Amino acid sequence: MSKVRAWAARKPAGALEAYEYEAGVLGPEEVEIAVEHCGICHSDLSMLDNEWDMTVFPFVPGHEVVGRVVDLGEHAKGLKLGDWVGVGWNAQSCMHCLHCLAGDQHLCPDVKPTIVGRHGGFAERLRVHWAWAVPLPQGLEVSAAGPLLCGGITVFAPLLQFDVKPIHRVGVVGIGGLGHLALKFLRAWGCEITAFTSSEVKREEAKALGAHRVISSRDPAAMKALTGSLDLILDTVNVPLAWDALLATLAPKGRLHVVGAVLEPIPLSIMELLAGQKSISASPTGPRSAMDAMLSFAARHGITPQVERFPMSRVNDAMEHLRAGKARYRIVLDADFA
Amino acid sequence: MSKVRAWAARKPAGALEAYEYEAGVLGPEEVEIAVEHCGICHSDLSMLDNEWDMTVFPFVPGHEVVGRVVDLGEHAKGLKLGDWVGVGWNAQSCMHCLHCLAGDQHLCPDVKPTIVGRHGGFAERLRVHWAWAVPLPQGLEVSAAGPLLCGGITVFAPLLQFDVKPIHRVGVVGIGGLGHLALKFLRAWGCEITAFTSSEVKREEAKALGAHRVISSRDPAAMKALTGSLDLILDTVNVPLAWDALLATLAPKGRLHVVGAVLEPIPLSIMELLAGQKSISASPTGPRSAMDAMLSFAARHGITPQVERFPMSRVNDAMEHLRAGKARYRIVLDADFA
Repeated sequence: MSKVRAWAARKPAGALEAYEYEAGVLGPEEVEIAVEHCGICHSDLSMLDNEWDMTVFPFVPGHEVVGRVVDLGEHAKGLKLGDWVGVGWNAQSCMHCLHCLAGDQHLCPDVKPTIVGRHGGFAERLRVHWAWAVPLPQGLEVSAAGPLLCGGITVFAPLLQFDVKPIHRVGVVGIGGLGHLALKFLRAWGCEITAFTSSEVKREEAKALGAHRVISSRDPAAMKALTGSLDLILDTVNVPLAWDALLATLAPKGRLHVVGAVLEPIPLSIMELLAGQKSISASPTGPRSAMDAMLSFAARHGITPQVERFPMSRVNDAMEHLRAGKARYRIVLDADFA
Repeated sequence: MSKVRAWAARKPAGALEAYEYEAGVLGPEEVEIAVEHCGICHSDLSMLDNEWDMTVFPFVPGHEVVGRVVDLGEHAKGLKLGDWVGVGWNAQSCMHCLHCLAGDQHLCPDVKPTIVGRHGGFAERLRVHWAWAVPLPQGLEVSAAGPLLCGGITVFAPLLQFDVKPIHRVGVVGIGGLGHLALKFLRAWGCEITAFTSSEVKREEAKALGAHRVISSRDPAAMKALTGSLDLILDTVNVPLAWDALLATLAPKGRLHVVGAVLEPIPLSIMELLAGQKSISASPTGPRSAMDAMLSFAARHGITPQVERFPMSRVNDAMEHLRAGKARYRIVLDADFA
């Protein structure tokens, strides 16, 4: 039996308090990870506030974990004690359904997210199925790697899914935790990049992060000038947008891909899609193989999330910083259990 | 100079009357076709009623034309006098923009639809750019081929666009002019086919046309039983549906593809797309190469539209038959100018 110290909220939107839970016996396919760093994703906040009506309290957030393997179940594959690994949104999948066998473990009907009905990474240790403890490659800056595991894969997986090529013209809506990584990835990918932001402050930052041009989505003339020019738009925000204006910036055969959790139904014009043979789609994180591909791509191109660091004991300050929309662009907690 | 006899409406929803127009000098890249047969598409009715606010009167409908080449402009390519050809929704494209050069002539920004600002195929002769007069292959039943040129390509092109394979499970919404051809194509394509219809009468017919099972989209229990089971849905109707229920029948990575001209914005749940990594998309007819591929596929598999025939002089009866929703499944007019 094994006690784990962690930070947990007792109720929706509640403060995170020191908390200890009994992890039980390590499963045969599980690995145990000593958490070194854990990013904070906007989903941690949504879950803390029980916005999606699926949070179990006491609630331990955290699903952008970087740490070292400290224990291995007897059937855990591909890892050894001491390995540096990362864990993202998903912690377990069945490994034998058609989706798992086809390499889409994130679409397994029995996939278990790291912080849904389980305790997450704001803790000294975390257990996950071996397939979701992803080895970190040599050359990756591990202390800032956490945000790649959720925010990063969420914007990287679509590049593989849709066979994005360096000749493509790609827009990124929202320059935050996900968007800033999208800009870095796309720049290294060789694409022509248009950033959409309504924040004046972020205009220059977006260029520094890789955008070739920055457009205010609230400027109708600027939007109109983009008509028919983009092959793909990655929408990383979770709020309603001027959808028709955005769709109009797509070239024929273009795609608007949403990775923000937009809760309200959006009014979609089929005629706008039809005339230009366009698509709208969405995706949740990505499969294991895409995580490996992303991590080695990031290491090879020196892509690191731009982070602000807090000791984990100051987790409530960190959550407030995120809630106030001040994170530039992602917060990482450094575990400091005594 | 060249007079052309035709059937034209003088005003929105007006009766079609005998009409004669001056076709002028044949363009260097044009071909002239003696119309033998012309299908009636629902778009002819929408245009007649000026539903899309782009009809020019006097209006000559008709864009599912089959006939023989009777004149060739000096730069018309790939055709000779006497060739059997078909013409669909498009009559001209620029041939030098990036879309034309990439083989997507139907997405050319200067594409000219056969019945928009031009006179269509309810006529003794029709002129189009050579690229849009598609040679009919040996073995195709020409007298019923007209509906392939618009209705057919509209449901066939997505099979190529989305790389549909015989292992895929495909749904077809609406068993009419487009839907009945989708069933025939998909059966020959080797797919598992689910037809959605709210018409009791069409249940058995849908099976005879190729569906493996027929579901009433108004039956919540039957819809629920399909949850997560379809890779692609082709929606051929132009009316609002129970979109969320339909999206729920898609398997992970599934796609709802709309080829009906749905005018009202539809309320789209991003979360429904996101969880299963789904897409929604739409397309207008298809490129020239897909029309050739479709025609030879139809000839090889003996696929013929199921049609009702009217002499062209009874065009008003035919339009009323269509308007009343009685066409099974497409009407073809046989030219009978004296």
